[in-house]
Amino acid sequence: MERLDVPVNETWDLTLIYKNKDEFFEDEKRAQSLLSSLRERKDCFTKSKEDFHTFYEDYVTLSRLLSEMYEYAHLNTDVEPGNQDYQLLLSHILTLFDQFENNLDFMNVEIIKNKEAIEKYLEDNSFDLYRYQIKQILREEKHMLSQEMETLLSKMSPIANTGEQIFDALRLEYEDVIVDGERKTLNSATLNEFLKNPSQEVRKQAYEQFYKEYKRYENVFALTLADCMKKDAFYADVRHFNDPLDYSLWDDDVPRELFYKILDKANKDYRPLFHRYNKLKKELLKLDTLYNYDLFTPLVKPSVKRYSIDECFNIILDVTSVFGEEYTDIIKKARDERWIDYHPTKGKATGAYSAGCYDTKPYILTNFIGDYDSLSTLIHELGHSCHTYLSCKYQDPANSDYRIFVAEVASTVNETLLINHMISHAKSDEEKAYFLYEFLENCVGLIFRQPMYAQFEDTLHQWAKDHIPMNASKITSLYDKINKEYYGEDVTNNQYVGHSCFYIPHFYYNYYVYKYTLGMTVALAIVSRILNHDSQQVEQYLSFLKSGGSMSPIDLLKKAGVDPLDDKIYDDAFHYFEHLLNMFEEIMKRGEKDVKE
Amino acid sequence: MERLDVPVNETWDLTLIYKNKDEFFEDEKRAQSLLSSLRERKDCFTKSKEDFHTFYEDYVTLSRLLSEMYEYAHLNTDVEPGNQDYQLLLSHILTLFDQFENNLDFMNVEIIKNKEAIEKYLEDNSFDLYRYQIKQILREEKHMLSQEMETLLSKMSPIANTGEQIFDALRLEYEDVIVDGERKTLNSATLNEFLKNPSQEVRKQAYEQFYKEYKRYENVFALTLADCMKKDAFYADVRHFNDPLDYSLWDDDVPRELFYKILDKANKDYRPLFHRYNKLKKELLKLDTLYNYDLFTPLVKPSVKRYSIDECFNIILDVTSVFGEEYTDIIKKARDERWIDYHPTKGKATGAYSAGCYDTKPYILTNFIGDYDSLSTLIHELGHSCHTYLSCKYQDPANSDYRIFVAEVASTVNETLLINHMISHAKSDEEKAYFLYEFLENCVGLIFRQPMYAQFEDTLHQWAKDHIPMNASKITSLYDKINKEYYGEDVTNNQYVGHSCFYIPHFYYNYYVYKYTLGMTVALAIVSRILNHDSQQVEQYLSFLKSGGSMSPIDLLKKAGVDPLDDKIYDDAFHYFEHLLNMFEEIMKRGEKDVKE
Repeated sequence: MERLDVPVNETWDLTLIYKNKDEFFEDEKRAQSLLSSLRERKDCFTKSKEDFHTFYEDYVTLSRLLSEMYEYAHLNTDVEPGNQDYQLLLSHILTLFDQFENNLDFMNVEIIKNKEAIEKYLEDNSFDLYRYQIKQILREEKHMLSQEMETLLSKMSPIANTGEQIFDALRLEYEDVIVDGERKTLNSATLNEFLKNPSQEVRKQAYEQFYKEYKRYENVFALTLADCMKKDAFYADVRHFNDPLDYSLWDDDVPRELFYKILDKANKDYRPLFHRYNKLKKELLKLDTLYNYDLFTPLVKPSVKRYSIDECFNIILDVTSVFGEEYTDIIKKARDERWIDYHPTKGKATGAYSAGCYDTKPYILTNFIGDYDSLSTLIHELGHSCHTYLSCKYQDPANSDYRIFVAEVASTVNETLLINHMISHAKSDEEKAYFLYEFLENCVGLIFRQPMYAQFEDTLHQWAKDHIPMNASKITSLYDKINKEYYGEDVTNNQYVGHSCFYIPHFYYNYYVYKYTLGMTVALAIVSRILNHDSQQVEQYLSFLKSGGSMSPIDLLKKAGVDPLDDKIYDDAFHYFEHLLNMFEEIMKRGEKDVKE
Repeated sequence: MERLDVPVNETWDLTLIYKNKDEFFEDEKRAQSLLSSLRERKDCFTKSKEDFHTFYEDYVTLSRLLSEMYEYAHLNTDVEPGNQDYQLLLSHILTLFDQFENNLDFMNVEIIKNKEAIEKYLEDNSFDLYRYQIKQILREEKHMLSQEMETLLSKMSPIANTGEQIFDALRLEYEDVIVDGERKTLNSATLNEFLKNPSQEVRKQAYEQFYKEYKRYENVFALTLADCMKKDAFYADVRHFNDPLDYSLWDDDVPRELFYKILDKANKDYRPLFHRYNKLKKELLKLDTLYNYDLFTPLVKPSVKRYSIDECFNIILDVTSVFGEEYTDIIKKARDERWIDYHPTKGKATGAYSAGCYDTKPYILTNFIGDYDSLSTLIHELGHSCHTYLSCKYQDPANSDYRIFVAEVASTVNETLLINHMISHAKSDEEKAYFLYEFLENCVGLIFRQPMYAQFEDTLHQWAKDHIPMNASKITSLYDKINKEYYGEDVTNNQYVGHSCFYIPHFYYNYYVYKYTLGMTVALAIVSRILNHDSQQVEQYLSFLKSGGSMSPIDLLKKAGVDPLDDKIYDDAFHYFEHLLNMFEEIMKRGEKDVKE
């Protein structure tokens, strides 16, 4: 679809940020003058409480300006990539970000150098708004090196990410898949479709033709992945962390027990649930052997139901009504004030996201096509946007920005509430089974498969730390073994399972995947409590959303009534999963029985 | 051929090093005890002149032991890779090298730290043998960093060469080439054969099908190459060099004017000679347009003449008789004492080399098949071996090892004398044309194409130093442009010329290729003077060979009567090339006229 053909009220209104690009350039001038002024105060900004306060205030103001300019430029380019005006704005703001980084690189160093004075200043009420953020800077002390060493490290940065860059640049080509005598293109986009094909032969063909290319280039992928692990181990070492895990957890201020608790829950305490689900798949698909490439074969008929945007909003408002009027009013605003760009149009960015900052609306980009997935995506992104909105409403600029570690909770809670709503409103067993299946698939990905990824990358990181050489054979054998362990004896490994690790970009993100698991687990626990009419849960959850980024992620989650170090939330989450699995199994077996009778 | 089928006197005799592996293990014990003893003296070895002298003497003894053990293990495995005994010896000596490096990493640091005392010791006669080597260590002072920074750099080394490692690991596959309706395999080994095919269509097909794969993966290659350039720039920067060129020249103690002189001679002063040769190719091949893929099409019929080993030695002894009996006696020894392993056998290393150290014979591995190339390779490697032999005979162990920078002179002088001999002994115009053509092709590769490579990598290094972003399009455009400039207007660039840079491994060797050019230029100058009966030249050249590694490469070359900073050697070299080009053109045009008449 061309952009001009879309009804205006189904596009987002970015003039709420700037009426035109002149306003952007005015802000650019303000930002540049603020930046110079900050830079000039390099040697004296910590001299007195007042100097430091003004400096930090200006620093926050500048950060806000930059965020606003960035949102305007990147949101516009994401829907009109061919518009050179917006491309220009984007290159301006990216350059400004670079200048911001380079010109203010003294700030953290000076704050840490004058730690005693700064800590004294922080006792004053005037620093209430900034205390948390500045304390985060002071925390860095023991991991900051001498100026000389820091300079060496920063000079090294252009060659530190070669492995990951090459992984991103290496685009493979795959042999066509033959379906009913017809040649079909195989690529990352179509692989998943082939894996849903009812013919096991087609699934096998697609899977093997896809991953054999990863085997062909296994030495390259082993090098890129090992390089990334060694890089993480290098930084952990030189910055005085015990190991790469501690290094990665530092920024989120998360204890390492949490990481291993997540792995243990998936692979020790609750692995029978995953194995049971896989066994059920094998039974329902009536396969003698269930291979990895059979895991995505639908167990139920896909839904053909379509939803209009208005229908979506009606359902979403119904689902989220549990959070009260303040929450549903935000959702109404999102529709009325045109925060959302709905339709796929030519050149528009793919996928979906929520993006915004303190001085803009929390905008949403989607590629809405009216199926259940579109509805689910919409409520997911609205979860983020409501979180941002409440954050900015109840927190000051310096405390409104929350971390990825907690972000997924807000979206997943919504998604889970939605599917629960769909299940309980389903008009037939078939419809109910469809939603249950969708839910179970989504769930096992997050609470079982992601921990498997996390365990794999944890071992690679340990090898890197201990200087144990990693080649393709060592890496793929490990991945094959871990798959066997997690999926259980009802899933048989194909020869290429070990090589499928080379396809996954997340291993380059330094312990990222466990955050997804935590988000889902917390969301499941929260939803199960809400559904069980836990009287406090809604209030606690809303208070979590309103707290933004004003404290550490763990403290924020505790505010939501969920302590991720406590076994209880895992029990709640996995029992809720089990409950839905029971329902699903019952319906499916009843269906089978009906057919037999 | 199986190894057992080769006549014993046509294999090398490695029992001259060790009678059996027990002797190897005895030396290993000696080496280990020496290493411990050196290590124990860590804190006191510079205390007195005597302590230092004994320490350094032991250090040299240990280095000799390691070299001898290494030669025994690697020469044996190169001809018998399946023999696990030799593989074991190789792994032993490689581990020992690691221990040597790790355990003695204090040596240079301590020597530099105690510079004043050491310089005083060096005044004493007892240090005559070690003075040059130790001064080389002291030179490092201004480029050595604090212990803390050196440790950081050494921790970084496992992730510093990712680009090059991935370049080495990325093996491409190519579409078949159709020749006379038949599919033929295209790969790096067969490409050169296709480029010699009389059909321009076949040549084009092979060239394009080969290099289009480099275009397909251009983003990966651009990243690996840029990474390597940025790595060189990083080390140059942190080790306080002006730029990557200075950093690379430092080790060979060569002034930067020399590098640019070599480029200027090829691309300014003498470029008309190269352009003239290309124009002649176009004429002789009768092509309207001469493309890059036509440059290797033979201008003359290949020689079918075959030489036995004995015939080769007769010719070689004749050719090198100009150097007198001492030199030819070494060549006779090489044959009689079985320094050479001649024949290709199953599993044997490909190519050819000369390898040896102070305590072994200067062994030669070749894959002799009796054609002119085999003869030429033999005299080339004998050039190296005679150089090593004379070096070890006239120099003490600490001064016998010479650098790559001068090594190629000794081999190329022999090769050039051989071809001159073949030209003057040719029995027909056709035979003479064949040798002239072989010579001209070899020559343009070294004195024109390598400087082109050098200019290309110099620009990339400058970009890296100046933080100028490099992507595939920027790199390939540069290479396309430089090709046009060097080859001149009679060669038309194919669309893939720019991408052909991605195939060349030498760009990963940090300013390596200009050393080939210098070797050839010096060799041409020396040979042309010898042929012009320059009375001093032979003596000077022999004295150069006998000087081994006892002084800087530039001083060594001056000993050979060739000052690489003086225009004269370039004039001599290029005029000699011109003389042979004149001869070739005359014969070829006479031939054409004959045909017409």
